Amino acid sequence: MSLNAVLARIDETLPEATDRLFALLRIPSISTDPAYKADCAKAADWLVADLSGLGFDAAARPTPGHPMVVGHSGGEGRHLLFYGHYDVQPVDPLDLWDRDPFDPEVQDTPKGKVIRARGASDDKGQLMTFLEACRAWKHVHGALPGRLTIFLEGEEESGSPSLVPFMQDNAEELKADLALICDTGLFESTQPAITTMLRGLLGEEITLTGPDRDLHSGMYGGAAMNPIRVLTKIVASLHDENGRITVPGFYDGVTELPDTVRAQWQALAFDYRKFLGDVGLSVPAGEHDRTPLEMIWSRPTCEVNGIWGGYTGAGFKTVLPAQAHAKISFRLVPGQDPHVLRDNFRNHVRTMVPFDCEVAFHEHGASPAGVMDISDPAFEAARGALGEEWGRPASYVGCGGSIPIAGFFQSILGMDAMLIGFGKDDDQIHSPNEKYDVESFHKGIRSWARILAALS
Amino acid sequence: MSLNAVLARIDETLPEATDRLFALLRIPSISTDPAYKADCAKAADWLVADLSGLGFDAAARPTPGHPMVVGHSGGEGRHLLFYGHYDVQPVDPLDLWDRDPFDPEVQDTPKGKVIRARGASDDKGQLMTFLEACRAWKHVHGALPGRLTIFLEGEEESGSPSLVPFMQDNAEELKADLALICDTGLFESTQPAITTMLRGLLGEEITLTGPDRDLHSGMYGGAAMNPIRVLTKIVASLHDENGRITVPGFYDGVTELPDTVRAQWQALAFDYRKFLGDVGLSVPAGEHDRTPLEMIWSRPTCEVNGIWGGYTGAGFKTVLPAQAHAKISFRLVPGQDPHVLRDNFRNHVRTMVPFDCEVAFHEHGASPAGVMDISDPAFEAARGALGEEWGRPASYVGCGGSIPIAGFFQSILGMDAMLIGFGKDDDQIHSPNEKYDVESFHKGIRSWARILAALS
Repeated sequence: MSLNAVLARIDETLPEATDRLFALLRIPSISTDPAYKADCAKAADWLVADLSGLGFDAAARPTPGHPMVVGHSGGEGRHLLFYGHYDVQPVDPLDLWDRDPFDPEVQDTPKGKVIRARGASDDKGQLMTFLEACRAWKHVHGALPGRLTIFLEGEEESGSPSLVPFMQDNAEELKADLALICDTGLFESTQPAITTMLRGLLGEEITLTGPDRDLHSGMYGGAAMNPIRVLTKIVASLHDENGRITVPGFYDGVTELPDTVRAQWQALAFDYRKFLGDVGLSVPAGEHDRTPLEMIWSRPTCEVNGIWGGYTGAGFKTVLPAQAHAKISFRLVPGQDPHVLRDNFRNHVRTMVPFDCEVAFHEHGASPAGVMDISDPAFEAARGALGEEWGRPASYVGCGGSIPIAGFFQSILGMDAMLIGFGKDDDQIHSPNEKYDVESFHKGIRSWARILAALS
Repeated sequence: MSLNAVLARIDETLPEATDRLFALLRIPSISTDPAYKADCAKAADWLVADLSGLGFDAAARPTPGHPMVVGHSGGEGRHLLFYGHYDVQPVDPLDLWDRDPFDPEVQDTPKGKVIRARGASDDKGQLMTFLEACRAWKHVHGALPGRLTIFLEGEEESGSPSLVPFMQDNAEELKADLALICDTGLFESTQPAITTMLRGLLGEEITLTGPDRDLHSGMYGGAAMNPIRVLTKIVASLHDENGRITVPGFYDGVTELPDTVRAQWQALAFDYRKFLGDVGLSVPAGEHDRTPLEMIWSRPTCEVNGIWGGYTGAGFKTVLPAQAHAKISFRLVPGQDPHVLRDNFRNHVRTMVPFDCEVAFHEHGASPAGVMDISDPAFEAARGALGEEWGRPASYVGCGGSIPIAGFFQSILGMDAMLIGFGKDDDQIHSPNEKYDVESFHKGIRSWARILAALS
């Protein structure tokens, strides 16, 4: 009965919930770009105010980077910690956006209503589903549901440099029975899912320096070492002709999928043609002997996320550049140690750097993969609640992305996490014109109300 | 006697000549960047005014790009055409300049006085040496020396798209007995030289497109084709392990140096250790079985002048980009047809582009290499005049850079060119902090006065 009252309240107040999300979306909290530091602080303060209004004892906690937002409800029972992040990706290339990324709008599309803005899906819209569920719950019950801690980060899109130190320094305060993380999606945009396998992430930036200044390729071309040539040889060397990664020791410790999980994934009948077709592609580009679902969920990868050097403006400049750069990331699976792999990668690169060329490395995060223990009955309870809301059974799935926090919850706070989210494959997170379906937002809020009822 | 009067006049008026050069250097005539179009026109107008003041019948002649400056002296005798270019290279990275690139200054350095500005050496300082020689000549003699045509281009640093059509349309007007080109340097910064071998240039830009939008490397990494990976494989494939270029047919028609030229070059005792050491390098990076002088003067090359794709800003972004780009240039030698090589290059690239990836090509100029006929007695006369000015014999040398105009003078106007210039290896043309030695400027003016006396 009281759950129905909470759900009704959610339905009635969806316009006000959308307005609150818009207020948060208007703050350009791009964590990777120092120019937006004040905006990140503003987003944190906005969340502290909202949490305080809900009855949480909340504060923006300083770090060397952007602040953490932490709020406690107090209360009794199973202690749940909810995690989300209030920072967003950069918006470049800006000219591919149809409107200002920080001027949110509800738009009618052939597939339904969407909320269009940077961060609408990743992760402001998702984190607000939980806060709105708490708000409706409190309105109906007069109190928050059970014992909750809210933990919102502002550096998720920039390698989370402050996260581990902050969790270590505040481990006693943050330790709970189970974490809830809302930063994932529906399986194939329709099926509710709890993510129980997450890939880790290792980020590296390499800078190659050859001559001590940019040279005229007419005067020096042919005789002087060009660092772009060296860089392309290194990057091209990272995969063999079968799509396998060539860094020595890269696959050490990587295990095959258990047969039960393999069978479950086969039953999902993943439509990889649609998955790739939605973005203009058709051929899986990973290891030739792996299925597309393995490629994105359970196999490690290496991607070049950025490369630059020399003249990149309009027209032509016959320059032989002093430097060339690349940003390279590895998605890791259980069994791979990111720190060992970082050393192996750097050593591999060093063997390919010729005399007269220097290489410098800059690290951008290192987090291991994670696997959750689904024998905790909370998982089945949440799976049931999700199935009721969405009218079809929820599944345990993998996730190609890295949500380092899940691994840190295990290693630092000794608790597993339930990763539940409502994003869709076409949300264009990290791309221009990011959106979040109004359905995701609305049913997401309702889903959390049902899960809180089932767990509390 | 009258030559001595001209030389004396040059010595006396060097400050005024420097002021005139400064006025031209203050105009930021960057031809490759459309933002500076009006400045290119301003530089052309400045030169027209200066030529008119010297008695030339001069005009800025419109083209689809930047104007050509053409001036005629009229008069009798051997018809000489002087060529230079008034456009300059871009100035990025601007933060590596010690001062505003377009605020010229005479600076004292341990190696002597230099004129510091973008274009000081390439090519405004050099072209003004000829105009100043004409000015002093006219002051002493009351008339310009013989029959002269001045032909100044504004697109040399951006592939000269208007040059060939303009020369074809105005061939009768521009045809002369011999061309003089001032866009080269002293051999090893000290020895006067006439360049008689020039490499050609083929410029290409390639754009690879994979997915139809930027993707999240967590969601798609491993399964979706990354155009940066494809691009690095292509660029890395362009040279084999011995430094040879792998484009099919690339060396077809390339001949070995005649023994006499090889002997002359050996006699130059080129100090490649200093040449490379001056820019922080030590090992020649070209074909393993070639001398450094061959690498930069007589062998064809392939260089990547720019590469970019994905996220290149501060921090990290786990994007799998939709596109990747590279600007690639080839220096060509006699026997290589740039148009055939363009086709061969594009076909080579196409064979490496996988399904799901599209390649687009954009051309940035194509000019053949050139070799001059030094049996014309004018060459020996000029060589003698240069030797008198600099106190040591002048040499015939090669040039690694491409000065397409020399090839076009041969193919379109049927005349050879004498390439004489006074730049030094440390002029940092195309780099930050470009300079031109006051000695180069002063003795350059005097050199042209001597050459004009010897040829008229």
